[in-house]
Amino acid sequence: MSGRLAVIGLGPGNAGQMTPEATEAVRTAREFFGYKPYLDRLDLADGQIRHASDNREELSRAAAALTRASHGIDVAVVSGGDPGVFAMAAAVCEAIEAGPPEWRDIELTIVPGITAMLAVAARIGAPLGHDFCAISLSDNLKPWELIERRLDAASKAGFVIALYNPISKARPWQLGRAFECLRANLPETTPVIFGRAAGRPDERIASVPLGDADPSSADMATCVIIGSAETRVIERGEDRSPLVYTPRFSTGPSR
Amino acid sequence: MSGRLAVIGLGPGNAGQMTPEATEAVRTAREFFGYKPYLDRLDLADGQIRHASDNREELSRAAAALTRASHGIDVAVVSGGDPGVFAMAAAVCEAIEAGPPEWRDIELTIVPGITAMLAVAARIGAPLGHDFCAISLSDNLKPWELIERRLDAASKAGFVIALYNPISKARPWQLGRAFECLRANLPETTPVIFGRAAGRPDERIASVPLGDADPSSADMATCVIIGSAETRVIERGEDRSPLVYTPRFSTGPSR
Repeated sequence: MSGRLAVIGLGPGNAGQMTPEATEAVRTAREFFGYKPYLDRLDLADGQIRHASDNREELSRAAAALTRASHGIDVAVVSGGDPGVFAMAAAVCEAIEAGPPEWRDIELTIVPGITAMLAVAARIGAPLGHDFCAISLSDNLKPWELIERRLDAASKAGFVIALYNPISKARPWQLGRAFECLRANLPETTPVIFGRAAGRPDERIASVPLGDADPSSADMATCVIIGSAETRVIERGEDRSPLVYTPRFSTGPSR
Repeated sequence: MSGRLAVIGLGPGNAGQMTPEATEAVRTAREFFGYKPYLDRLDLADGQIRHASDNREELSRAAAALTRASHGIDVAVVSGGDPGVFAMAAAVCEAIEAGPPEWRDIELTIVPGITAMLAVAARIGAPLGHDFCAISLSDNLKPWELIERRLDAASKAGFVIALYNPISKARPWQLGRAFECLRANLPETTPVIFGRAAGRPDERIASVPLGDADPSSADMATCVIIGSAETRVIERGEDRSPLVYTPRFSTGPSR
């Protein structure tokens, strides 16, 4: 007897940005697995059970959730943002591929959510208005050389770059090194957006030129967006913060 | 007297994937500007006014909306998916920068939405589970050479690639040429996902190997996701479609 597993994206963290589909998926699940701060966002009913875990235990969390689902329980795994972007959907797929055959029979549903870069971009203009990429800056799961190679390729080819997982206590120097790489390919004036906790009460969104970008402006809850050479800043009156956007058109290859 | 302009992401097209914030922004606006099929999704009240336009008139639509907002009207510009991803938010910013100074005083709000690649990815597994990029395949606003250069750079650097605007009557050959470029850098077995109308009644999601990818499988409503060399397919029983995912980890630089 197989149950169901829903991998649910809760969005950036305010109720207005969580989809009705996600709300309904939470309502109908019985047991919840996730990183504790995400579980804390849920307003669960009597009889709904939480299994909180730490944020670097994705694979064991996925396996625990699949085990419960294979026992016939309706299980939910929750992610902040979108579960398919550097989050639990890939971990669940990894666990299914490596796990017992019966896990492939579980009814798996993935519920998308507003991912951080979209929420941050919306608060400042349209920095992702042209071709862009998303890179996780964590070198826990890939070699740092590969990250540098991607930063180099993306900035040379004119992509706007959204950095997820920019910094943590265990990874203090990587963001600074990333800015150094990018300065080799992009003008010092390129806008860099530090978008922290977009849409939440403790939101902090700021844009600075790449030449002045300070890694200590970021924390674990920050998504950093680095413009391309074509990204522009529109100054507005005193009452309004500048808009940062990347035009839809591009006149030619960058360097 | 300045009104307000909300640029609203309606999501992929089913009500369950439109955020409460977007629903509320629609409820409170007075005049609506957008591509007709997006306006047709709205259930407007008496007194709410529609201004439909064609899908290649983004800049004039943005200017018309800003003009009305500058006259004190509460205006909404609607996009499918997310307005910041190859959609109206950048067009509105372009118009503001080029327009009269008073347009900078308009209260501008951008309401994010679930963008197509997230909705498509959720229906098939987690193809965007590792570093990825989004490229518009339209060469209306940038030279084709630049698109080829980005396809080459992204596939060589190991990014999964989501293609927006893959094909249209006026742009019939570009997607086939894109597949040719990608075959030069990626194995023939690399999964290619054709995700059409994700979450809508006429949804059609399929994964084929890059070697067999046929451009005629795509239309204007399709988002095409091309895996990296590390993207994997998990076969399941007869009742379940295969899962396609890109592992969170990467063992080393690709070619």
